[in-house]
Amino acid sequence: IKIYEVHVFRFFRFFLACIMAEVPPVPEGYEMRDLCREDFHKGLIPLLAQLTQVDDLSESRFLEIFELRQRQAEVYRSLVIEHCESKQLVATASLIVEAKFVHGGACVGHVEDVVVDDHHRGKGLAKSLMNELAEDARRRRCYKVILDCKESNVGLYEKCGYKVCDRQMRLDIPASAAKP
Amino acid sequence: IKIYEVHVFRFFRFFLACIMAEVPPVPEGYEMRDLCREDFHKGLIPLLAQLTQVDDLSESRFLEIFELRQRQAEVYRSLVIEHCESKQLVATASLIVEAKFVHGGACVGHVEDVVVDDHHRGKGLAKSLMNELAEDARRRRCYKVILDCKESNVGLYEKCGYKVCDRQMRLDIPASAAKP
Repeated sequence: IKIYEVHVFRFFRFFLACIMAEVPPVPEGYEMRDLCREDFHKGLIPLLAQLTQVDDLSESRFLEIFELRQRQAEVYRSLVIEHCESKQLVATASLIVEAKFVHGGACVGHVEDVVVDDHHRGKGLAKSLMNELAEDARRRRCYKVILDCKESNVGLYEKCGYKVCDRQMRLDIPASAAKP
Repeated sequence: IKIYEVHVFRFFRFFLACIMAEVPPVPEGYEMRDLCREDFHKGLIPLLAQLTQVDDLSESRFLEIFELRQRQAEVYRSLVIEHCESKQLVATASLIVEAKFVHGGACVGHVEDVVVDDHHRGKGLAKSLMNELAEDARRRRCYKVILDCKESNVGLYEKCGYKVCDRQMRLDIPASAAKP
C-alpha cells in the first residue's frame, strides 16, 4: 500500500507539473524576458516616461548604465515584456537585491520602476513581472521584498501578495548640488 | 572694484570654510567612520538587534557579506559611530546607490538600517549619519534619497530634511521558500 501511495503521489506531482508548465507566464502575443542592450530601440525610455521623469537619455548613456548594472548582476535584475506584433516593450520592472547583515545575513529585494504601457493594461502583465521577480527574490534568498508606491496603486500590489507596511520618505537633491 | 570684490568673496569663502571645518560632524567622545572588518567585535550585531531581527550571524558570515559589499562599493556604503571610551559602535546607517535609467541616467540613494543605541540617543548621532549619507548621495549624483520608516520616526527624518512621500509595501518570503 505504501509503494502504491508513493506512485500516486509521484503521478500527482507529475500531473501538476504538466499543468503548471502549460500556464504561460504572460498572455499570448507577449514575451517576458530580461532587459537587453537592444531595448533602447524598443521603446524602453518612452515606456519609463509613463512612470516618471526620464529627461534626455542618450543611447550611449543607456549602454553605460546597462553595463554598470550587468557588472553588478548580483544586485540588479530588470525584466521587460515585449509585444510580439509591434516589437515594442510594453512593461518593465526591476529588482535590486541588497545583502544585509540582519536576518542572519539574508537579502532584501527592492522592486523598482514597475510600469505597464497604457494600451496594454488589464491583461495581468504587471502581475507576471511581479511573480517572476518574487521567484527571483526567493532564489536569491531574500527574506522579504519591499517596494514604494502611490496610495492609488496599493490595491494592485495587494493582489500580488504585498501588504501595506511603513511610510516612504524622500529627500530631493537639486541638480546643481549633484555636480562635483 | 571688481578685483576688490573677488578678494572679499574669497575671504568670505575662506572664513566660511574655517567655521565649517570647526563644526565637528559628531559630538566629542564619538568618532564617525566607515564600517570595517573589525566591527563585528565592536558590537555591530547587538546594535542592529535594536532595530530588527538579526538571528544568528557568525563572524565568517559577517565577513562574507562585508567583502561582497566591498566588491560592490559603487552600490553600498555603511557608516558607523564609535563611542571612544567604550570602543563600541553606538550608531550605524547605510546607503545603497541604485543606477537608474530614468532622470537622465541619475542615481537614487536608499537609506537603510539606521539605528542609534538606546543609551546614546538625543545627541544628534542619527542626524550626523544622515547628513554624511546625504553628502555622499550628492557626490554620487543621486537626484533623491529615499527611505522607509515607521510612522513614529517620521518626525526624526523630517528634521533631516525628508518629506513623507509614498507607501511602503512588503511581501514576506517564508524561510522554507528561500532554500534552493
